[in-house]
Amino acid sequence: MLDNPKNDPDLDRDLRAVWHPCTQMKDHASIPPLLIERGEGIYLIDRDGKRYMDVISSWWVNLFGHNHPRLNAALKDQADRMAHVMFAGVTHSPAIDLACSLVDLTPSHLTRVFFSDNGSTSVEVALKMSLQYWQQTGQVERVRFIHLSGGYHGETLGALSVCGIDLFREKFEKVLMENIEVTGPDCFRCPYNLRPESCGAECFEPMEKTLAENAKTVAGVVIEPLVQGAAGMKMYPPVYLKKLEDACASTGAHTIYDEVAVAFGRTGALFVCGEHGLSPTFLCLSKGITSGYLPLAATLTSEEIFQAFYGEPSSMKLFIHSHSYTANPLACACANETITMLRENNFLETLQPKIKYLGEVGNRLRELEWCGEFRQTGMIAAMELVRDKKSREPFPPELRVGYRIYLEGLKRGVFMRPLGNVIYFIPPLIIMEKEIETMIDAADESIRAVLKK
Amino acid sequence: MLDNPKNDPDLDRDLRAVWHPCTQMKDHASIPPLLIERGEGIYLIDRDGKRYMDVISSWWVNLFGHNHPRLNAALKDQADRMAHVMFAGVTHSPAIDLACSLVDLTPSHLTRVFFSDNGSTSVEVALKMSLQYWQQTGQVERVRFIHLSGGYHGETLGALSVCGIDLFREKFEKVLMENIEVTGPDCFRCPYNLRPESCGAECFEPMEKTLAENAKTVAGVVIEPLVQGAAGMKMYPPVYLKKLEDACASTGAHTIYDEVAVAFGRTGALFVCGEHGLSPTFLCLSKGITSGYLPLAATLTSEEIFQAFYGEPSSMKLFIHSHSYTANPLACACANETITMLRENNFLETLQPKIKYLGEVGNRLRELEWCGEFRQTGMIAAMELVRDKKSREPFPPELRVGYRIYLEGLKRGVFMRPLGNVIYFIPPLIIMEKEIETMIDAADESIRAVLKK
Repeated sequence: MLDNPKNDPDLDRDLRAVWHPCTQMKDHASIPPLLIERGEGIYLIDRDGKRYMDVISSWWVNLFGHNHPRLNAALKDQADRMAHVMFAGVTHSPAIDLACSLVDLTPSHLTRVFFSDNGSTSVEVALKMSLQYWQQTGQVERVRFIHLSGGYHGETLGALSVCGIDLFREKFEKVLMENIEVTGPDCFRCPYNLRPESCGAECFEPMEKTLAENAKTVAGVVIEPLVQGAAGMKMYPPVYLKKLEDACASTGAHTIYDEVAVAFGRTGALFVCGEHGLSPTFLCLSKGITSGYLPLAATLTSEEIFQAFYGEPSSMKLFIHSHSYTANPLACACANETITMLRENNFLETLQPKIKYLGEVGNRLRELEWCGEFRQTGMIAAMELVRDKKSREPFPPELRVGYRIYLEGLKRGVFMRPLGNVIYFIPPLIIMEKEIETMIDAADESIRAVLKK
Repeated sequence: MLDNPKNDPDLDRDLRAVWHPCTQMKDHASIPPLLIERGEGIYLIDRDGKRYMDVISSWWVNLFGHNHPRLNAALKDQADRMAHVMFAGVTHSPAIDLACSLVDLTPSHLTRVFFSDNGSTSVEVALKMSLQYWQQTGQVERVRFIHLSGGYHGETLGALSVCGIDLFREKFEKVLMENIEVTGPDCFRCPYNLRPESCGAECFEPMEKTLAENAKTVAGVVIEPLVQGAAGMKMYPPVYLKKLEDACASTGAHTIYDEVAVAFGRTGALFVCGEHGLSPTFLCLSKGITSGYLPLAATLTSEEIFQAFYGEPSSMKLFIHSHSYTANPLACACANETITMLRENNFLETLQPKIKYLGEVGNRLRELEWCGEFRQTGMIAAMELVRDKKSREPFPPELRVGYRIYLEGLKRGVFMRPLGNVIYFIPPLIIMEKEIETMIDAADESIRAVLKK
């Protein structure tokens, strides 16, 4: 397809009217976007019938594959009752069931669910709740958030202000809320020369210092637990989070866990916080919540936070935030079916052999001369390509190594979308071992095709 | 129902786990939310089978009624192909068709469509595109936006920073981007003592002055054309917008039209900008775009803006913004069917007699001793209640006049949700004349029941 891009009139129409997200549109002047017509399990199918394995789950959202009969049925069944109703003054079963499930399945102190539409808004809600909490409980100077270098929490301007990746923020620096960036874990290039399996999160020191120095002005710390996705699937051990919780407990700062990318089975568990006995003040969820069907997000928090907003109407303590489609019943119906499927037939246990197998076949990638690191957390795996294995010297961005490997992958029927020099895999959880092997083989071949010259 | 709230266990579950948007949750301790199970045309139906006329279209989103066979069919048909696929590197027919329709139906200079999930994000996208445009075209000091008092553009922190309603922003003032608020039109309490039908937008003066004084630092002006929704359906004449376009053209500032609430037939036209020959730099759409089925938004802009982001990958001029479910195919399918229905069988023309009738029966409300003003723009009507008709003295907020009228409305099978002292109607466009009469009668009775004491 790439060697002979079809002159499909719909592609012309796309290129005349559509502005694609996070895309230099000029790239599509030579190589048009894939025109995907159908989905089937872990495959995307284009207009010519060519199949592409969706190894990044369509931006990390899909859990049970495309066109799943049970999710389709849940969607259609809800459509026959009601697609949507506003969520102020009104409630409905799909939202009630989902909220109760989330409260039941997350750590016990999380008792309240506020719905919104996407990962960005789930973080905006947490930031706003944290700020308003401090305004209403007397610590009015708590108006700054700490975030990690490499952190990503969405791209609306509030969420972007706690983002630690220059690429996303640099054009907007002049208007972003002044938050505090702290150097976070970097296990691949650990400055302490430690291994994540055995370290004590020595790299927590800058966070500890920053929290102590700003103890009275920090509202909260925003963090992606275990995996910093957009930074290139950078992974770090849970001991960092335990230290964070202790430090926040001693200074009173809130913890905002952005599990948008990692929750709902990606790490092998439903939620990272639950798996590791952690107690975030706020838990942000989206992406997999509907198994890749519809936009939906939830921000969970504690009774203590909720009570600070509860009172007589005249107190004006209420949380004023809304989106028109808050708790959309169609999306909630898909989410409820997703949670049912995640919890039945020991589904999460069935991931364990796949996780093991992914590590095993991933070893093949470790042998590549350009493999700086092959890392894995549950069903998420990533390989960081380097020009020189010993010095860990990265490929310069102008070589566009990742993009060229992506194009080679398409030829081989695998839809990857590297993050810079990091080739990563976050496939639908239903992927089978044989397909994992195909995926790794295709990546292997694509990398060699680009770099062996 | 309100006199004898049912002890439905699902309501208990709701009140234990759900945090509703823009709601003082303590209100629900005495009066639980409505437990809506089904929708049918313009009616919402609760678990006991009681029907409520949805006169505010579920937060202004629904155009063709609930559970519409054609929208349901469009949704299900798309579900059978593919619920979702990521929108970077990929495209699909539902998004292409929608983008092309929007480009065709809006003013001709709007050629590019960027999708997102809700009204807030559609505005965030416009703000970010405007900022980045100036950064990339040499006017780097253009980093402030002008907005109107009473303006509402969403509640993520970027969108909130161009909001002119204290209620929404006051708890977050310390972190909001510094924009410039200008006193906007206030036709009901016009300081010039003019009538909107015949005035020359004399109230444009503060905007003109502010634009001139900040000519080099203003990136753009954000505005809700014709109707300031959250401010209480405040309405103003198009001459204000014509003056705005002239003033922005002379200073170079962008115009960002937030037609999230008013587009897709609400005013009697598809788009306000098209109807009045206006040329916004950015046009923000959401709400009615899917006829109240699913969250979806679009930000349209011109070729000039698009080209400032187009270039070699190494130039790093691309627009970096994304949401996982950008251009969700299910939502796009509903949007395409919505646009088809809006355009066929002279649908918009069929609204004209309804608009006329709404004005006629609305006259009945004008006779109420508490009616400060009954105003109307197309299918949107609002009545501002006052304590004293002559002085226009408002009811004090602690009386909660609007909330009490809302409760009376529920008893009468009408779901209103006033904005402070403003009772408003923005019903599904399919409402019939007889139903308009019922709606107005119920409002009339509800108002009398609360105020005649």
